[in-house]
Amino acid sequence: MGTVGAGVAKLLLDHGDRTARHAGRTLWLQHVVVRDVLKKRDVDLPEGVLTDDLKRLLNDSEVSSVAMLVGGVEPARTIALKILEAGKDLVTANKALLAEHGPELFDLARELGRSIAFEAAVAGGIPIITNLAQCLNANKIISISGILNGTTNFILSRMDRNLGDYDSCLAQAQKLGFAEADPTMDVDGSDAAQKLAILAHLAFGAQVHWADIPRRGIENLNADDFRYARQVGHRIKLIALAELTETGLQLEVAPMLVKIGTPLAEVQDNFNAIRVTGDAVGSVFYHGQGAGQMPTASAVVADMIDTAVGRTKITFQTLKLWSDTAPTIQLAYRGDSRSRYYFRLNITDQSNILAPITKIMGKFGISIASVFQHDDDRLETNIVPLVIMTHETSEQNANAAFEEINQLDFVHPTTERLKVLNSADG
Amino acid sequence: MGTVGAGVAKLLLDHGDRTARHAGRTLWLQHVVVRDVLKKRDVDLPEGVLTDDLKRLLNDSEVSSVAMLVGGVEPARTIALKILEAGKDLVTANKALLAEHGPELFDLARELGRSIAFEAAVAGGIPIITNLAQCLNANKIISISGILNGTTNFILSRMDRNLGDYDSCLAQAQKLGFAEADPTMDVDGSDAAQKLAILAHLAFGAQVHWADIPRRGIENLNADDFRYARQVGHRIKLIALAELTETGLQLEVAPMLVKIGTPLAEVQDNFNAIRVTGDAVGSVFYHGQGAGQMPTASAVVADMIDTAVGRTKITFQTLKLWSDTAPTIQLAYRGDSRSRYYFRLNITDQSNILAPITKIMGKFGISIASVFQHDDDRLETNIVPLVIMTHETSEQNANAAFEEINQLDFVHPTTERLKVLNSADG
Repeated sequence: MGTVGAGVAKLLLDHGDRTARHAGRTLWLQHVVVRDVLKKRDVDLPEGVLTDDLKRLLNDSEVSSVAMLVGGVEPARTIALKILEAGKDLVTANKALLAEHGPELFDLARELGRSIAFEAAVAGGIPIITNLAQCLNANKIISISGILNGTTNFILSRMDRNLGDYDSCLAQAQKLGFAEADPTMDVDGSDAAQKLAILAHLAFGAQVHWADIPRRGIENLNADDFRYARQVGHRIKLIALAELTETGLQLEVAPMLVKIGTPLAEVQDNFNAIRVTGDAVGSVFYHGQGAGQMPTASAVVADMIDTAVGRTKITFQTLKLWSDTAPTIQLAYRGDSRSRYYFRLNITDQSNILAPITKIMGKFGISIASVFQHDDDRLETNIVPLVIMTHETSEQNANAAFEEINQLDFVHPTTERLKVLNSADG
Repeated sequence: MGTVGAGVAKLLLDHGDRTARHAGRTLWLQHVVVRDVLKKRDVDLPEGVLTDDLKRLLNDSEVSSVAMLVGGVEPARTIALKILEAGKDLVTANKALLAEHGPELFDLARELGRSIAFEAAVAGGIPIITNLAQCLNANKIISISGILNGTTNFILSRMDRNLGDYDSCLAQAQKLGFAEADPTMDVDGSDAAQKLAILAHLAFGAQVHWADIPRRGIENLNADDFRYARQVGHRIKLIALAELTETGLQLEVAPMLVKIGTPLAEVQDNFNAIRVTGDAVGSVFYHGQGAGQMPTASAVVADMIDTAVGRTKITFQTLKLWSDTAPTIQLAYRGDSRSRYYFRLNITDQSNILAPITKIMGKFGISIASVFQHDDDRLETNIVPLVIMTHETSEQNANAAFEEINQLDFVHPTTERLKVLNSADG
């Protein structure tokens, strides 16, 4: 019973009318298992509910479903396995656990005839799991592009609004409780990659470990690039992207330029948003709170209701998640991924700069859409930033050209290369 | 098998792999019942499927569910009753039928142990029915604000972009197939009111007939008001609004000013969007295609899968829709509804205009936020438009003040009064 657990307890205790109305019966909170029963809690529990003995819950035959709201991989994994083995259905918000041990947990649940629900594991208050696993079932999903991490979006929104550089915006996020003391998993893109792995499995049947998804974090972004991006009509967002191409599924988490006016570009502060494109439905866009006590609790309790009435069991059985028998999909070679690119170079302010650059671009078949030299942002007396927007090209060619351009003697560190998200996914 | 029916047939025939994957079995298209079997169709049906004899379908014991995609109230109602009486589950996209005869149909289905699914009846490709009936179950819903009619949003988007007046934008919508030859039900707000009645029933338990929802259409909107609204930071949108207040549920369909930058203000062309606010989840925003062959077919086939696997039956039984035993909610007196207002007056261009206007405003306790006189838009030599934005007030007081101001001898027809949507709902 941390933050989310306390929220779940509040909904179950204070609003039994809701579970009664939607589940056809009131869901009773029977046990709350915690490590330290003496710790002060944010919620008044009825007498006898709080315990530090997991066995009390496991051995209670009246308990049919358990919301396991422990974070991290262990002891969460061991507890989850015990809950399933005790014959209870499992509801969890733990994305890391699913991303690491999904196959093990789902196999065991199937074997024992139990179910696992995990709406709260991705994008908190946005019911994206149910929407992918159920509502958009008639579609072949073409792409998913999302802002799945509220911490980084809070930081990037502030950098976009000129409110500071990366370090000061991170400090602000920590001060306001939008970033943890150790924000590594958020800012390096790991958290978003774990969520993307779950969504890609649901939508495409991809069986990919999150750590194998190419990802870049936001730690090295330069505040100036936000201004230059805005000048060419874009904002920089940390995008989790899954895209079906002719050669397979492209997966990536990276800061990208997103066109101003498209829905993802306008996602502010710690919000999450997801754009799903299906071949029948077209694009459906979802926006909401990605975390926080009550939005996450809302997802957990909806799962508990679904589990109580039997919807979870049906969905769980038909989806065959992370099973050997489910069809899977080939991951595409990333170098084939096609998009436009933003290059920001620091160049010596002299004539005849563009000729050698365009020559390299030409060698890799890349054509240039625009070039801006930012004379007001002189780094040293004779070094100025130069921003190049390319037309569409492959990632392989963009990388090769960028690398070769960086070898030119009038190009100085640190340079920047960012992908531009296709408007259709923005 | 009109437009949507042909789309459903395509998904079932061409993409049996999807229904197989998500329903655990392939859904077979057994019969297509049409009025005229000789009419040319947009889809190749297998031999022997097409018929004009409804009894062939009703008497076929192998048929378990039927998508009834006939529009309007009759003969749709009679066909739907026959389908249920024949022991089949019903899937429909017909909002008018549900809005008029929901209680009769739902009672019969319950009595016979059958289910009715209707995801496609509201907002086409946006799965708002499942999201309200299932995903947001842990919440007390506080408000729903939506753009539920694509035809009117197409027209209003164009008027907002200075592309013409109401008549020419309507003509353009008809030319491009976004408006019917007789657009009455769309442009007068009836279609949106029917959809709002369904959403309000799901979210609040409101048992209201759509015709009792206060509504105003877009037929009398003046292109100038779009410019004036923009100048004060707003766009004009046809908003379907359901809001829980202390005295009960407020329901309304009307053109309103929506703050630029809030998600609903940026919904373009024929798209639909819905913002749902719950006490736990906060705001969740949905955006997608509101109509069209394949988006609507996507919703119908998702319903057919849900019906085949048994999810629909569970949801249908627990929700007790339009039943006598379901809890209902009091509708609030509209006059108590509180918001800001936009008044546009045409006034004689003379001094001492504001004193009598502010005097009337003051009498009704209304304070003024801003006043703009549009001297460049002179209607006659000495008549100019005057735009007043008020602070928050009750609808009752706004109406009374507006009426009294219209009696002033320097105020000339035709004037305009529009509600400003609260930013939290925008």
